[in-house]
Amino acid sequence: MAPLTDFYQLTMAYGHWRAGRHRLPAAAELFFRRGPFRGAFALAAGLAEGLRCLRAFRFSAADVAYLRSVLPSTTEDAFFDYLATLDASEVTVSAVPEGSVVFARVPFLQVKGPLLVVQLLETMLLCLVNYASLVATNASRFRLLAGPDMKLMEIGLRRAQGPDGALSASKYSYIGGFDCTSNVLAGKLYGIPVRGTIAHSFIMSFTSLEEVQPRELLPLAGGEPVDLPALAKSLLQRVCELLQTPPEKTNRGELAAFVSYAISFPHDFQGLLDTYCVRRSGLPNFCAVALALHQLGYRAVGVRLDSGDLAQQSKEIRRVFRACGAHFQVPWFETIPIAVSNDISEQSLEEFSREGSEIDMIGVGTNLVTCPLQPSLGCVYKLVEVNGSPRMKLTEDEEKMTIPGIKTIYRLYDAAGHPFMDLMALEEEPLPSAGQELAIRVLGRLGETSKVCEPLPSLPEVRSHAQVSLSLLSPAHRRLHEPQPYPVAVTERLHNLLTELRQATQ
Amino acid sequence: MAPLTDFYQLTMAYGHWRAGRHRLPAAAELFFRRGPFRGAFALAAGLAEGLRCLRAFRFSAADVAYLRSVLPSTTEDAFFDYLATLDASEVTVSAVPEGSVVFARVPFLQVKGPLLVVQLLETMLLCLVNYASLVATNASRFRLLAGPDMKLMEIGLRRAQGPDGALSASKYSYIGGFDCTSNVLAGKLYGIPVRGTIAHSFIMSFTSLEEVQPRELLPLAGGEPVDLPALAKSLLQRVCELLQTPPEKTNRGELAAFVSYAISFPHDFQGLLDTYCVRRSGLPNFCAVALALHQLGYRAVGVRLDSGDLAQQSKEIRRVFRACGAHFQVPWFETIPIAVSNDISEQSLEEFSREGSEIDMIGVGTNLVTCPLQPSLGCVYKLVEVNGSPRMKLTEDEEKMTIPGIKTIYRLYDAAGHPFMDLMALEEEPLPSAGQELAIRVLGRLGETSKVCEPLPSLPEVRSHAQVSLSLLSPAHRRLHEPQPYPVAVTERLHNLLTELRQATQ
Repeated sequence: MAPLTDFYQLTMAYGHWRAGRHRLPAAAELFFRRGPFRGAFALAAGLAEGLRCLRAFRFSAADVAYLRSVLPSTTEDAFFDYLATLDASEVTVSAVPEGSVVFARVPFLQVKGPLLVVQLLETMLLCLVNYASLVATNASRFRLLAGPDMKLMEIGLRRAQGPDGALSASKYSYIGGFDCTSNVLAGKLYGIPVRGTIAHSFIMSFTSLEEVQPRELLPLAGGEPVDLPALAKSLLQRVCELLQTPPEKTNRGELAAFVSYAISFPHDFQGLLDTYCVRRSGLPNFCAVALALHQLGYRAVGVRLDSGDLAQQSKEIRRVFRACGAHFQVPWFETIPIAVSNDISEQSLEEFSREGSEIDMIGVGTNLVTCPLQPSLGCVYKLVEVNGSPRMKLTEDEEKMTIPGIKTIYRLYDAAGHPFMDLMALEEEPLPSAGQELAIRVLGRLGETSKVCEPLPSLPEVRSHAQVSLSLLSPAHRRLHEPQPYPVAVTERLHNLLTELRQATQ
Repeated sequence: MAPLTDFYQLTMAYGHWRAGRHRLPAAAELFFRRGPFRGAFALAAGLAEGLRCLRAFRFSAADVAYLRSVLPSTTEDAFFDYLATLDASEVTVSAVPEGSVVFARVPFLQVKGPLLVVQLLETMLLCLVNYASLVATNASRFRLLAGPDMKLMEIGLRRAQGPDGALSASKYSYIGGFDCTSNVLAGKLYGIPVRGTIAHSFIMSFTSLEEVQPRELLPLAGGEPVDLPALAKSLLQRVCELLQTPPEKTNRGELAAFVSYAISFPHDFQGLLDTYCVRRSGLPNFCAVALALHQLGYRAVGVRLDSGDLAQQSKEIRRVFRACGAHFQVPWFETIPIAVSNDISEQSLEEFSREGSEIDMIGVGTNLVTCPLQPSLGCVYKLVEVNGSPRMKLTEDEEKMTIPGIKTIYRLYDAAGHPFMDLMALEEEPLPSAGQELAIRVLGRLGETSKVCEPLPSLPEVRSHAQVSLSLLSPAHRRLHEPQPYPVAVTERLHNLLTELRQATQ
């Protein structure tokens, strides 16, 4: 993994090495400057992946040969020999647990070790943490908007930045609160539940009922096999009468596709309704096949809509299901799950709840995996101490300034259990004491150093941790639009250091 | 690569297999519905990668075991045995050459083969083509805005969707017209030029000139080694006098970092000016070190700015370089390249040229790799023919309708050599004849089938092809804002088929 870095890390590494500074003790911190998506919080993720890559951090012989070909020819040979021996074994990393709620300006990953290695790790750690945290946070926002009962499915494979981007999207959306993914490889690699039934292409590949093969289905309770196309066709007639829609407007290829799929998966039949016309074709065809399945003892698992006004259609479909359920005396028809997809965004979810939709499951692709509201989290990784002395960056952009020194982070909770402030102190400061007028309690310490010890928490454990972290947030900080800014404090001593360094450099 | 797919592709595959339809001849086409970034064109990319993955398309025993665990338990064993034998050897793919200009609604990749495999390839091909084409197009827009002489560098590694997303970004930005990347791994894997010098962290890791080790540099022409910190310090005095800035406001750690870097890379010294104050510290320190290098026969390679008003500062810096060049009689000082970074967007480039900046090189990260103006290209892959009969999707969203049948695409050029129309015809139609009143010429045929024959064109060849394709575009179609819509036509016969199928399904 070591060559996964920006080239300037290597020119700087040579600079440090040549100056004999490469083994100076150093510390860096990783944080973001503004809450993503204009919210107050983010979920920290990608940390476990970062640890794994740290262990694999090495330059192979081929890597070193490549670097020799691109670094200036004046670079000394001994430097390349040194690179070949490098690893991250002298580096200590401290971080919040994967899936924790974190806030702007507060470091959530700290790295200590020899200057050269601490510096070289920057790009790799940022690359692994930035997108992971962004998409986990994005997913958590969809979850907060959808409420706890809505099924949320990640379907962004074809819209992500290639295979690996898509796998990250699946994994970190799951951590953020999604229930399942369409991505088979993500299911296989990470054990995330996978879901999916049919696409328009399947329906379009049929033109008539003659094409349905095989045609018979055994009733669930046993008995003679039934000709499902014939049964569905006769039921379609009755459904069309009930719905007062002309049978000749139903598409026969669509009916054939539904019947064929139902014969293949009698326990898992879902109808995709909008290949042709939802009301005149998709819906009656679905009802006919679902009723046919019912006569054989099976239950359809749902319908899906992929175009048009989804909230409006879901209500109309629910009315039809209720009418069919009553007319054909099939009570479960009323509660057939309605799934939707098609460019679903946070705004769509807000509209669904405003319009009182009848939607039970939502597939989110592009707007989940590409995070268009803010396509990058913008985490940074800053040196805060070298050789025992604190460092800071003073610049003309106030926002780009850093807070010097190795810090310990305290999160302060109010009486209701909501975090109300993160407090940064210098590592050498004593623990702040509890029991003051604001009933301050010290919960977590970032600065604790420990060996990386597998097993890291499992994906479902991280997912639960994320949901618990989110549930602890006060509503004012959790809300997605114009949240109350989350206060971050520094101790008196850290403030003095900041002022001192600022004066020294001006 | 076969499990890199949406789960519904596998449930549909079972549906086709169970119905004995899996080997029906089928054809699908890949296209996008709207030009990305509100432009008229896109660059097609990811096609070579698609071909490579097609060759590797196979389900391993572990893949099949996983699928057995997630498909409904009613799925027949023989289906899994069949999956284990699948590959893409019966599939024919036709596409435009990698890096070609393509337009909305016109297929640029066509797949023919057995229905089941053609369908299974959908997600993988979309995943590989969508982002690749999007980021190549985005890069080409930056190139068009920057003009041919500006150096453009891709620096998005830390903001991409993980390592693989970042590698795709580097590769396809290069195709789109960028000159180099910061991503060392992309350099190693693809041979893209890599660049980079120093970051703020390097500068912040120094506090005084005492830390500079070694301190001496040999003059280029030979002779006695020179104490560079001492020489730079004395020149700094003279530079500050010239610039009328107080020497005590220059940061000593910054000077030390510059001197140390210059000793390490005397032929490749670039100063990063904004760690402290550009005007009072970064710029005088840089000039002092560059002048010291000059006395020893070396030339500095440039400066970089990473904050503030970049265009304005570049002009101020150029004035200082001119003043120093004249005062110290160092003519090359006037033309020291000025590089900038910091959230550069299309809008930034427009501002730079509006303000007449003195910028020579631009690093683009987030706004290049995450494509925030449109984070997904939205390519689709649609079945257009099954078993010899054309298919189309009619839906309530007009935009989601497809054009049926296997097509041949003609691109028509005007007398000035600009493409003015893409024409779709049914594959079996005769070639349109040239020499009509609009001087129509047929240039390329998409429909030609051929074996995949390595070697595919090299990355630089593809990059040139992209630039040539772009240069052929008429200015009306090339412009980035409110371009003239590019016309796409169908033949009379294709139009008739469309009408016929539409009537048949309504």
